[in-house]
Amino acid sequence: MSNVTIRNIKTICTAPAGINLIVIKVETSEPGLYGLGCATFAYRHKAVRLMADEYLCPLLVGCDVADIEDIWQIMNNNSYWRNGPITNNAISGVDMALWDIKGKMANMPLYDLLGGRSRMAVKVYRHADGGTLEQVASNVKRFMDEGVGHVRIQWGGYGGRGRGKRPEGAPEGVYYDPDQYIRDTVGLFEYIRENVGWEVELLHDTHERVPPIKAVGLAKELERFRLFFLEDLLSPEQSDWFRIIRQQTTTPLAMGELFNNPKEWDYLIANRLIDFIRVHISQIGGITPARKLMILCEAFGIRTAWHGPGDVSPVGHAANIHLDMVAPNFGIQEWAGIGDRLSEVFPGSPELRGGYVYVSDKPGLGIDIDETAAAQYPCSEGVTVWTQTRLPDGTANTP
Amino acid sequence: MSNVTIRNIKTICTAPAGINLIVIKVETSEPGLYGLGCATFAYRHKAVRLMADEYLCPLLVGCDVADIEDIWQIMNNNSYWRNGPITNNAISGVDMALWDIKGKMANMPLYDLLGGRSRMAVKVYRHADGGTLEQVASNVKRFMDEGVGHVRIQWGGYGGRGRGKRPEGAPEGVYYDPDQYIRDTVGLFEYIRENVGWEVELLHDTHERVPPIKAVGLAKELERFRLFFLEDLLSPEQSDWFRIIRQQTTTPLAMGELFNNPKEWDYLIANRLIDFIRVHISQIGGITPARKLMILCEAFGIRTAWHGPGDVSPVGHAANIHLDMVAPNFGIQEWAGIGDRLSEVFPGSPELRGGYVYVSDKPGLGIDIDETAAAQYPCSEGVTVWTQTRLPDGTANTP
Amino acid sequence: MSNVTIRNIKTICTAPAGINLIVIKVETSEPGLYGLGCATFAYRHKAVRLMADEYLCPLLVGCDVADIEDIWQIMNNNSYWRNGPITNNAISGVDMALWDIKGKMANMPLYDLLGGRSRMAVKVYRHADGGTLEQVASNVKRFMDEGVGHVRIQWGGYGGRGRGKRPEGAPEGVYYDPDQYIRDTVGLFEYIRENVGWEVELLHDTHERVPPIKAVGLAKELERFRLFFLEDLLSPEQSDWFRIIRQQTTTPLAMGELFNNPKEWDYLIANRLIDFIRVHISQIGGITPARKLMILCEAFGIRTAWHGPGDVSPVGHAANIHLDMVAPNFGIQEWAGIGDRLSEVFPGSPELRGGYVYVSDKPGLGIDIDETAAAQYPCSEGVTVWTQTRLPDGTANTP
Amino acid sequence: MSNVTIRNIKTICTAPAGINLIVIKVETSEPGLYGLGCATFAYRHKAVRLMADEYLCPLLVGCDVADIEDIWQIMNNNSYWRNGPITNNAISGVDMALWDIKGKMANMPLYDLLGGRSRMAVKVYRHADGGTLEQVASNVKRFMDEGVGHVRIQWGGYGGRGRGKRPEGAPEGVYYDPDQYIRDTVGLFEYIRENVGWEVELLHDTHERVPPIKAVGLAKELERFRLFFLEDLLSPEQSDWFRIIRQQTTTPLAMGELFNNPKEWDYLIANRLIDFIRVHISQIGGITPARKLMILCEAFGIRTAWHGPGDVSPVGHAANIHLDMVAPNFGIQEWAGIGDRLSEVFPGSPELRGGYVYVSDKPGLGIDIDETAAAQYPCSEGVTVWTQTRLPDGTANTP
Repeated sequence: MSNVTIRNIKTICTAPAGINLIVIKVETSEPGLYGLGCATFAYRHKAVRLMADEYLCPLLVGCDVADIEDIWQIMNNNSYWRNGPITNNAISGVDMALWDIKGKMANMPLYDLLGGRSRMAVKVYRHADGGTLEQVASNVKRFMDEGVGHVRIQWGGYGGRGRGKRPEGAPEGVYYDPDQYIRDTVGLFEYIRENVGWEVELLHDTHERVPPIKAVGLAKELERFRLFFLEDLLSPEQSDWFRIIRQQTTTPLAMGELFNNPKEWDYLIANRLIDFIRVHISQIGGITPARKLMILCEAFGIRTAWHGPGDVSPVGHAANIHLDMVAPNFGIQEWAGIGDRLSEVFPGSPELRGGYVYVSDKPGLGIDIDETAAAQYPCSEGVTVWTQTRLPDGTANTP
Repeated sequence: MSNVTIRNIKTICTAPAGINLIVIKVETSEPGLYGLGCATFAYRHKAVRLMADEYLCPLLVGCDVADIEDIWQIMNNNSYWRNGPITNNAISGVDMALWDIKGKMANMPLYDLLGGRSRMAVKVYRHADGGTLEQVASNVKRFMDEGVGHVRIQWGGYGGRGRGKRPEGAPEGVYYDPDQYIRDTVGLFEYIRENVGWEVELLHDTHERVPPIKAVGLAKELERFRLFFLEDLLSPEQSDWFRIIRQQTTTPLAMGELFNNPKEWDYLIANRLIDFIRVHISQIGGITPARKLMILCEAFGIRTAWHGPGDVSPVGHAANIHLDMVAPNFGIQEWAGIGDRLSEVFPGSPELRGGYVYVSDKPGLGIDIDETAAAQYPCSEGVTVWTQTRLPDGTANTP
Repeated sequence: MSNVTIRNIKTICTAPAGINLIVIKVETSEPGLYGLGCATFAYRHKAVRLMADEYLCPLLVGCDVADIEDIWQIMNNNSYWRNGPITNNAISGVDMALWDIKGKMANMPLYDLLGGRSRMAVKVYRHADGGTLEQVASNVKRFMDEGVGHVRIQWGGYGGRGRGKRPEGAPEGVYYDPDQYIRDTVGLFEYIRENVGWEVELLHDTHERVPPIKAVGLAKELERFRLFFLEDLLSPEQSDWFRIIRQQTTTPLAMGELFNNPKEWDYLIANRLIDFIRVHISQIGGITPARKLMILCEAFGIRTAWHGPGDVSPVGHAANIHLDMVAPNFGIQEWAGIGDRLSEVFPGSPELRGGYVYVSDKPGLGIDIDETAAAQYPCSEGVTVWTQTRLPDGTANTP
Repeated sequence: MSNVTIRNIKTICTAPAGINLIVIKVETSEPGLYGLGCATFAYRHKAVRLMADEYLCPLLVGCDVADIEDIWQIMNNNSYWRNGPITNNAISGVDMALWDIKGKMANMPLYDLLGGRSRMAVKVYRHADGGTLEQVASNVKRFMDEGVGHVRIQWGGYGGRGRGKRPEGAPEGVYYDPDQYIRDTVGLFEYIRENVGWEVELLHDTHERVPPIKAVGLAKELERFRLFFLEDLLSPEQSDWFRIIRQQTTTPLAMGELFNNPKEWDYLIANRLIDFIRVHISQIGGITPARKLMILCEAFGIRTAWHGPGDVSPVGHAANIHLDMVAPNFGIQEWAGIGDRLSEVFPGSPELRGGYVYVSDKPGLGIDIDETAAAQYPCSEGVTVWTQTRLPDGTANTP
């Protein structure tokens, strides 16, 4: 109990790098004391904003900012039906902001508040793709030259080279052929290992684009290339297939960016069916549940690899990295880079140096937002279609 | 393919009986042809409306109304992150409306379209509570006199008699004592069986209010009263405890009104850990997934008992009952009653006669909405607090 | 309920392409309104006809055609002992005809009635065999030139090159040597991958001709050729061996043309022991159970590949393809081709164009029968012997 | 090899006791040497006759009668699709007749041929029912007075007292209420144990009339009455529920009269989920598979209790009892009695003396048929409706 209370919850939507970001600012009864949290669900930003403005704000005004655990439970249960991407992101915005406030009140960076550093800095993986094998190889080498030891490789976009072929008269969407993609991916790894060598840790993201038994086969075929991990091999609904994969191959498995319900991860962890938990922290409801998830994974020998591409705000990246600093079972951090415009809107953003990312040592999350700058980059309002992936015959294909 | 397309998606919020209801109207390119669907998430109606108006409507205008399966997949995947109560309810509104349209185009009641009747009418259970044991018994007898064979009993509200005691200085919320509740509930069943007899099927809803091992114990203690089912004994997050319950008692188990993610139910069904699936159909995304779930359950000997209290719109009730008419594995239907005001706003609502409910034989769902009447009952805007349940020491207690 | 009733059930046996086909015509109280269903059990057509004429017809005359689910249950239970190839085929004939009638009454193609299209067209696999490796390769290439992307290959007939060698004095039957067959099959795949390449999806059908542990070995040896699937590897009685196969190899497994009892498939699906369900739809009792099976498989990540050779009538092919159009988890369709004589007897038969098959858009199944033409091709009455497979020492070998 | 061959296969249909019986007579190349087998599928006798006359007879004429195992495999595989009630009964007729012939050629009763007697005589259970508890008790006592130690009890018919109530306007069928039936059955056992005592082994047949979880509950509630066994508690499709029953109660379980496919029994036996195998021998294909099944059960500590009511011909009863004489793991024999008319048509029928049944010591099955007498009792041609069981709301209820 602190006698500092929540005075207002404010939602800021901004898209400095072209991707819609949602950041929540919790303002307190203490003048000048506020916290920031990431609530980014890029494709439904208006719904998240409404949830925060119309439901969480009136619910929480007057609550003591110290009682994060109780507030999290109240937010989670208030609407009776819970979980899901919109609810969880709004909750996350408030939850992270409360942790930010607590850090500021303690005058400590969040990682110190959470138990202190387990490491000096946070190693990252970068993403290298290209239209040709040569381009991918050249991009991998460029990262290696920059000191990055872990590179995720892709030939073409997600779904592979076939991507983009749209049959005549077929509905809009991203068309691709899972079989060509698999052949290409095995070929890609052969090429990279032959031409770039073994002194780099390689990763790959299938983005849930292959049917289950093909996923088992792909994991097994890639075993000989000794991946650091193979990412998002199965849709959450079909994750029980990891049991079959586990019987046949040692390819390390990372999973979870789509997760927003505890039943999606609990059995994967308790049965050691994956090796890296890769949730998007705001999707599961913020730092409070992520910290518990990280601790649960530690008990089962599973490491962290929080989701960290451009659809996470710099505030969310800062939260990722504070947790990374603390976790004994930290694995790796996805890192897509924070460009100039983003850094300008979010002063104090984490920074990459060599293959490591560093978080600010200022109290709390150590990051701020320039609201005037943010307002210059309004969110796009249209409905996205990149998610409409289809097979060559036109079948919608659940990622 | 029908060459009839979606022209508009319109959201209607109304509260004729004091509970916020959300109904979606899908208007087509065919003059006068439209469908209705239930999208009721009573405690977040504004978020569901925004999802339908701002995201689903622009996404779907121009789609062929015949392609329900494809449209459902597109709705489900469009935002990449999926499931959860807001997304699923909005999807349900559109999905049910498309089935309503298909029924109208086929000139068949929905149950005929889905394969035809398995029974004459749909048996229901009613809810009897009371502040004293005598009151509960008297309410049970009243239902029996009306021809109702299945009655759910409760002493006090959910959480039992203790409900409402709020310790001084404690935050707002519903306070209750799980131990007193359990003692009272066993006592209630003893009283009812002694005073009302065995010629009535009794049910009970624990509303996830007891810790897991107490839940196991309660199920076991109640076995001798031969319940028709014991409902919502565990929170979705703790449903693996059903494995332990299954080893110890034959009390039939019903579960699911909180479910909004397939991983919450898949293992319960595949392992036969429950006996009745009790989802709120709009919470899981409408008729398309509910029909699949009902068929999945049939394979495992599990029966249906769709959620049907006042936080389901009459349109949703009609959808429940059409599925009930068809399912070989129909179990029972929860029925809270549809009063005069609701019937006036929703002409063609299902009707109770004796212990059975009857659905309209008109094409599609067979129910309509009087939008002028609906507009007279605006939704309440406040934030609910009934969900804030707490133990006597103030602990927030996840339902 | 439609007040249209079953007036007569008529069985038509015809063999336009030399294979006995059985089609059931359900005539209704509505003049000119009838439906067709496939009841083809090629080797026992007289028994199926008797079942329909002597038992199902008197049982069902007067039933309302709308109540398909109830009628299916009644047909299934009427003789107390149920399942099996004769009973199920007769039931299928009536069941499909009732769905055909429902589609006609709704004025919709069956795929629209069942939920609408999931794809533009239905991709197929064709069968390429040959006495020499060169012939097989040349047949594969021919299919590829026609736009077919999936080809099932076989050296010789089922059982391989050895087929046909009959030891002196031995009883009639097909003689073959499982060991030679396995060696040949591995050699065949090596030859085809080397000479035809990897841009074609290859399949293989073992027709249950090898003992279990050899089957495990064959699946494992073929893994490196990345099959689309390996078909009917084990007899239904020995399908528990799939558990062992699943621990050792990622070769995708298709199973089921022999199935006619739910206990043959339930555990394979619930334990994800196969990847494609390949039942002969009329063998399991028609569209009603096939639709449920398809939905059951969807929940477990298993795809459909309905049995579709020449011992399915064009009416049965149409039913296959309507389901294929709807299933989100459609995998592939076996396609043996419908020649001129068959098309003449069955106007409106599905058509192959490129590697895809297209079904008629007319109401119901969209296919008709010319009974006068059908009568010109009477069924053969003899008893088949091709099924009498024997090992070189004369042992009868259960497929 | 015997050089005696099959000359003709003849089907005899007769109904001396009002139930359709099918007996197959295999005539040989040896004048006067023939065998009899039971092929009784009472509700589809015309289909079984056709199968034998049109398919098995032309297939087998000329085969050596000594090669039973080979002939059985040929019969089983000849139509490719196999199992099911019609195919198996026809096969059984031939199979039993071949064993009868073999016994005659060896000049030995069948039990001697199969390994010799394990016991002097075969103990049976009888069926006692009644409209009142007093009547049931009196019928039990009557059997006890006759020396019968095992009695199966039932209040009313299958489905209990409620049987026969047909709601107005409801379709034909047997209506019953599972819940009333369960309450009554527990009451019946209480009454019989109190009024008749514990010196009689009691059995009960649920005839698959209750939903799975109620079946679990019934087995558990009956535990305290120490049943000899509880029979046919679950439909074959839902037999996996025996796993749950096995965790909760020691009530001995008998199962199997509906079985006609090996996948219905294999896992029940291998996992020791039942205690008595109760198949109708002709339903599974005759003595050849029944002898193997009996041996399989021995390995797992499971006993035999072959199905033996009036829908088994005296020839089938004789086969049951020959196997009973031999099996070390014999459990009990169901016995409905063979009246005068039946004995007249089937000279040499087994006879009941005290609580034991005795089989003839003549060679082979030891039973004959008087074809002239048989012809006086033609089979009824109508379609049965007793199997159309329905719940009070009209739902067809799969036995």
